[in-house]
Amino acid sequence: MSSIEEIRAKLQACAQSVRDTNPMAPSITNFVTIDFVANAQLAVGGSAAMVYLPDEGEMLAGGQGMYLNMGTLMPVYEETIPRTVAALHKNATPWVLDPVGLGIGELRTKLVEQCKPAKPTIIRCNASEAIALAHLWELEEACSEAGVRGVDATDSVADAVQAAIALARFTGGALAVSGEEDLVTDGQTVARVAGGSALMPCITGTGCSLGGVAAIYATCGDPFTAALAATIVFDLAGARAHEGAQGPASFKVAFIDELYRATPADIAAYPFTIEGV
Amino acid sequence: MSSIEEIRAKLQACAQSVRDTNPMAPSITNFVTIDFVANAQLAVGGSAAMVYLPDEGEMLAGGQGMYLNMGTLMPVYEETIPRTVAALHKNATPWVLDPVGLGIGELRTKLVEQCKPAKPTIIRCNASEAIALAHLWELEEACSEAGVRGVDATDSVADAVQAAIALARFTGGALAVSGEEDLVTDGQTVARVAGGSALMPCITGTGCSLGGVAAIYATCGDPFTAALAATIVFDLAGARAHEGAQGPASFKVAFIDELYRATPADIAAYPFTIEGV
Amino acid sequence: MSSIEEIRAKLQACAQSVRDTNPMAPSITNFVTIDFVANAQLAVGGSAAMVYLPDEGEMLAGGQGMYLNMGTLMPVYEETIPRTVAALHKNATPWVLDPVGLGIGELRTKLVEQCKPAKPTIIRCNASEAIALAHLWELEEACSEAGVRGVDATDSVADAVQAAIALARFTGGALAVSGEEDLVTDGQTVARVAGGSALMPCITGTGCSLGGVAAIYATCGDPFTAALAATIVFDLAGARAHEGAQGPASFKVAFIDELYRATPADIAAYPFTIEGV
Repeated sequence: MSSIEEIRAKLQACAQSVRDTNPMAPSITNFVTIDFVANAQLAVGGSAAMVYLPDEGEMLAGGQGMYLNMGTLMPVYEETIPRTVAALHKNATPWVLDPVGLGIGELRTKLVEQCKPAKPTIIRCNASEAIALAHLWELEEACSEAGVRGVDATDSVADAVQAAIALARFTGGALAVSGEEDLVTDGQTVARVAGGSALMPCITGTGCSLGGVAAIYATCGDPFTAALAATIVFDLAGARAHEGAQGPASFKVAFIDELYRATPADIAAYPFTIEGV
Repeated sequence: MSSIEEIRAKLQACAQSVRDTNPMAPSITNFVTIDFVANAQLAVGGSAAMVYLPDEGEMLAGGQGMYLNMGTLMPVYEETIPRTVAALHKNATPWVLDPVGLGIGELRTKLVEQCKPAKPTIIRCNASEAIALAHLWELEEACSEAGVRGVDATDSVADAVQAAIALARFTGGALAVSGEEDLVTDGQTVARVAGGSALMPCITGTGCSLGGVAAIYATCGDPFTAALAATIVFDLAGARAHEGAQGPASFKVAFIDELYRATPADIAAYPFTIEGV
Repeated sequence: MSSIEEIRAKLQACAQSVRDTNPMAPSITNFVTIDFVANAQLAVGGSAAMVYLPDEGEMLAGGQGMYLNMGTLMPVYEETIPRTVAALHKNATPWVLDPVGLGIGELRTKLVEQCKPAKPTIIRCNASEAIALAHLWELEEACSEAGVRGVDATDSVADAVQAAIALARFTGGALAVSGEEDLVTDGQTVARVAGGSALMPCITGTGCSLGGVAAIYATCGDPFTAALAATIVFDLAGARAHEGAQGPASFKVAFIDELYRATPADIAAYPFTIEGV
């Protein structure tokens, strides 16, 4: 397990490398928050591109990184997702899976099942989705019961620790579980980060855009560092944006501004705790 | 016909219940304003989820409420909409129909015809759409001629009163007709509400997001109360947001903030008139 | 070649006519920036409507103007785009092509090839896309090599001058090429415009929304005037919005506000240079 100082050094290097090299992490993502995902990726220094067709997904899977969010499905996804995740796996391209809305509809379940062998580099989810995903993928260590209601979590992050660890050990990557206190783990170390704003659940897409930003960071850092950097920059920007916000929409504007203004040194210096598991 | 005091009490109870219970009203809605719909629903205290596939629509139709807006169609809607509205009807789930762009394309006409037997709880539209819809559904009382140009109204709300009443009497629900002066009716009572801002036609999606918010309120109130609460909170937030807006985009930010800041008491106290019909 | 005074008079007349008549230019456009496109069109005084289905595209192609952006493709585009561009050509409706992401996927290449005989009134692109499009359409005068990376340009506008001129001569319309210095040409005159903000590449959709606004102006002016008016209003609004912006999101809000606030006289008075070719 890395020391907290080593982790901070990696966070700073990862965020700085993104600022220096403007990496692109294309997305297959939902229609609700697609603009927020793209603008968040740009704000932290990355570049964005969104596609839906099978050959486009397969082609972009050969790039630097990718973000897959199945919040809103179209029939063509039945072909696009399997081909894309197979190409991601074959190319060893880092990618983020966001299993939004797990449990709604047959295609969603089938597609998320098909993601299992491609082992996502980072899984971005809330507590209920972590538990549901661990069950769907039949990871035995995950034994608590999931309570998913549409796109919202009904379980707390504490309930999802075992599932998150099991998922990270299976993929060999990292989990970023969002909640009142956020949890990041690679299956060996669990980091906990607090911050953000009570206004974050009042806007749509903070989870999606965190996933998109994690995909950007994953082009320049290991999975745990990337997941933690994304989690921290969201907690940091959320807390800063909270000041002066008049409501959820002015909060969202300030939040994206603060993603842009957060420096690699700010991210590296943000408080978090770690423990070995 | 309820007295205005009784209506105000219902408005306050409905808006308060939404704040207390965070009800979800999923949407099948257009791609242009989908983010605005979701954020408006969250701002008034509700929860959002958007879907497109047939089994997803059918599943979510068993929930607390739903919003259907056919502004942008995809081929899969040919199956999704009939299955969803049938399930809404069967489950007696309150739902809002927003017949955007009526007259553009064959599928749109066909789908809106298929909504007729499912009798939407609330119809959210502009004056031209109310007239066109009454004609399409062959409601004899509606005799004036519709003038629809794409998504904009070319008729005034006054021209649409008869069509609105006819539609409400047919569905047994309510109409929310947007215009310079807004009209809400359940076929027995006509309420008129003024307010908003001259900047509202300069942004896209105020109508769609009003429909989404009406679906949220319809989970916690009768159709007339829900349609009126949504209309009032939009007129109220629009008027408040107008102050200090530098243009349409800063207006939109302030508008969503004001949706969030409007209290149930504010909504209940807002001026409107009623008359029996 | 028109004198600069003549061009300024046409710019003012075009922008004023848009403000006076509220023309509609429907779009077939990508899901990422669709809201930005619509709101930019409304901000300059136009009206918006977005469609995807073949008969809808064909119907709207009989209107005042149209904007086609293939940034995100769906399978139905295979039928929608050819039918729409054929109808645009047959009706001599002014339209804007935005060949976003040229080079990604087979369908995109095929659809952009199919646009060639319909000769878009205005092509809105970055430098790399201009070069790639001239090659795809086999316009011999365009001889430099294109470097396209997803949706971003890797070539400078100077590299694209020959391609832009060749494309404009082929279509008989105009090109609006975005970059650090923007270039507008009808194949006879090259106008150069500077301005904007260093924050513009930090938000998604400035190019798309410029294309949508160009389609609005093309309903009330010749192609060169429309392309130049759109380019100028974006440079003007970008420069004004830069003042006081705290980051990319507050910049975007201010930018749309400034599109709304820019008067026809402001647009006509903005600095630009012209040279004959």
